[in-house]
Amino acid sequence: MKDIAKELGVSVVTISKVLRDHPDISDETRERVLSYVKKVDYQPNVLARSLVTGRSYLVGLIVPDLLHPFFAEIAKSLSQVIGGKGYSLIIASSEEDPELEAREIRQLQARHLDALVIASCALNNTSIDKLALHNDPYVLIDRNFSKVKSNFVGTDDEAAGRIATEHLIQMGCRRIAHISGRNNSTGYGRLQGYQAALQSHGLRYRKEYVVSRPHVDADSIDQGKQAMQILLGREIRPDGVFCYNDPLAIGAMEKIFEEGLSVPDDIAVIGCGNLHYDSSLRIPLSSIDQQSHAIGRRAGEVLLEIIESKVPKPPQKVVLEPTLIARLSTMRNSAAHSDGPKVKTKK
Amino acid sequence: MKDIAKELGVSVVTISKVLRDHPDISDETRERVLSYVKKVDYQPNVLARSLVTGRSYLVGLIVPDLLHPFFAEIAKSLSQVIGGKGYSLIIASSEEDPELEAREIRQLQARHLDALVIASCALNNTSIDKLALHNDPYVLIDRNFSKVKSNFVGTDDEAAGRIATEHLIQMGCRRIAHISGRNNSTGYGRLQGYQAALQSHGLRYRKEYVVSRPHVDADSIDQGKQAMQILLGREIRPDGVFCYNDPLAIGAMEKIFEEGLSVPDDIAVIGCGNLHYDSSLRIPLSSIDQQSHAIGRRAGEVLLEIIESKVPKPPQKVVLEPTLIARLSTMRNSAAHSDGPKVKTKK
Repeated sequence: MKDIAKELGVSVVTISKVLRDHPDISDETRERVLSYVKKVDYQPNVLARSLVTGRSYLVGLIVPDLLHPFFAEIAKSLSQVIGGKGYSLIIASSEEDPELEAREIRQLQARHLDALVIASCALNNTSIDKLALHNDPYVLIDRNFSKVKSNFVGTDDEAAGRIATEHLIQMGCRRIAHISGRNNSTGYGRLQGYQAALQSHGLRYRKEYVVSRPHVDADSIDQGKQAMQILLGREIRPDGVFCYNDPLAIGAMEKIFEEGLSVPDDIAVIGCGNLHYDSSLRIPLSSIDQQSHAIGRRAGEVLLEIIESKVPKPPQKVVLEPTLIARLSTMRNSAAHSDGPKVKTKK
Repeated sequence: MKDIAKELGVSVVTISKVLRDHPDISDETRERVLSYVKKVDYQPNVLARSLVTGRSYLVGLIVPDLLHPFFAEIAKSLSQVIGGKGYSLIIASSEEDPELEAREIRQLQARHLDALVIASCALNNTSIDKLALHNDPYVLIDRNFSKVKSNFVGTDDEAAGRIATEHLIQMGCRRIAHISGRNNSTGYGRLQGYQAALQSHGLRYRKEYVVSRPHVDADSIDQGKQAMQILLGREIRPDGVFCYNDPLAIGAMEKIFEEGLSVPDDIAVIGCGNLHYDSSLRIPLSSIDQQSHAIGRRAGEVLLEIIESKVPKPPQKVVLEPTLIARLSTMRNSAAHSDGPKVKTKK
């Protein structure tokens, strides 16, 4: 950077500002620096840049499972947003183990990253409290903790549960089960939405129709199979199932097929997350779109604001609206005569 | 680290060695340091550790698309292996754009990482040559460049193409098409295997049965649909298709269904990669398992060896054997009477 400054007769700070896209630079200077930098194929030395700005230009992301396409999609869009500003993304997976998550948080904290983004698998806020205590900038995604004031980007989970359950009701289901998430904000919110929808349509909430599994974000297909097996063993079989996420729903459908039953006529199934492969499945899966791409993007925008702000910012909360994507797995014959409002079907 | 050293009456180097699992430490000392570190919930300061060892404890991974489960699986297992040794993983996506890949490589190089792992989307070795020139340690995965002596971990692609095509022949297909990859080591290898299998079974290689698409690792489902449309327009319709990867095969199957044709009886389809969701698809997809988990793990082992070795190591080449996973998409009725060798079927 020094050499370039000497060559062009400007200060190192000026060059640093140009490379960081700082507004405080004339167009002419910017032009000169950028064309020179391009000419010499300059690799901005991150260490030098860090010395000027005091930043590491590293952002950490901790998710329960990188193989879950929901989190892979978030990682992708987050990486795109911050990459454009010269930040790189360190990824760690908690394997849905709160202890491993706490360890990953500690390890990344020790690296003095500029910010952490966490889709926490913890059921309490111990680790997040510690983060807040150290004043380390962080953004929670997908799962929030009501007891801590954090930056948060996620979906309205209560709405997600309500929309999914109301869709099943509209499709003619009357005995609706729920394969639930864990007792965190997403799991609890979707359960609340499920209960609210039942109640507002005068359907009874039956405890035995709500089945939870210890893991829901890793090995979810197997967990969905197990949960569906339990539901199929109930005295009166459910005729619709809202699943906490799509991989659980895929597993639930597999179990239904194994038992020689049909989707959607015997049991309609809806998931949540609207994953990539939903439309190519044996029975294309209805789902709730959570805007996973937007979650990653908005989280990136929030954290760039925090990092680049000169004054501490009050925590921001971004709650995205979920939407219904109806596919074959809920298109029951009995609903053909339903007089409910029309549903937009997507293949 | 200094405080701990003082407290225990040992040197900072000793503590650093214990934390790095260095063999040069007595069991007693190791025990003492580790139990103390655990007691005080010590967060090893990476900067301090870096000063001692001269390492950043960061490894970069560049893949064409993080949403492609094949690369997500590699990222996951790689992260697990190096995480156990205190290294963190920086992930970047090239979006299958060689220019973006070159930029990502330069950016990560500027960070002085301990090693880079690259599944390159480039068709020539310009970027890799530059890496080699700087003596920066790197491991190529999945795609190799024959002109550069690099560390490489991947699958035997020629064998993958041969096994897939021979399986289609065995299932009774005689007009076998190939939706090919790009002109890199994986695309070329699988095409070679396809041609070799045709030849060794006395089947004619027809140029018009090989269709390639500009992108195969991003938006692959759409690309597979397009390629299949071209194949369906050929004068004589193929009765079997070997696809470069599974997302392409999913797209090809969708196009076949759209045309009112059946899989596998009209056209049998086999992919490559053996992705997570293959068995839950409308027609469960036959595939070639490439041991993606093992690719990530072995790449991690190779790079740890390079980083921790005191002398330069000659490039290592790890080539894993692909295996056939036969599912419904290739189980043709006509093959029921085949007298070929039995195939292990997996649901």
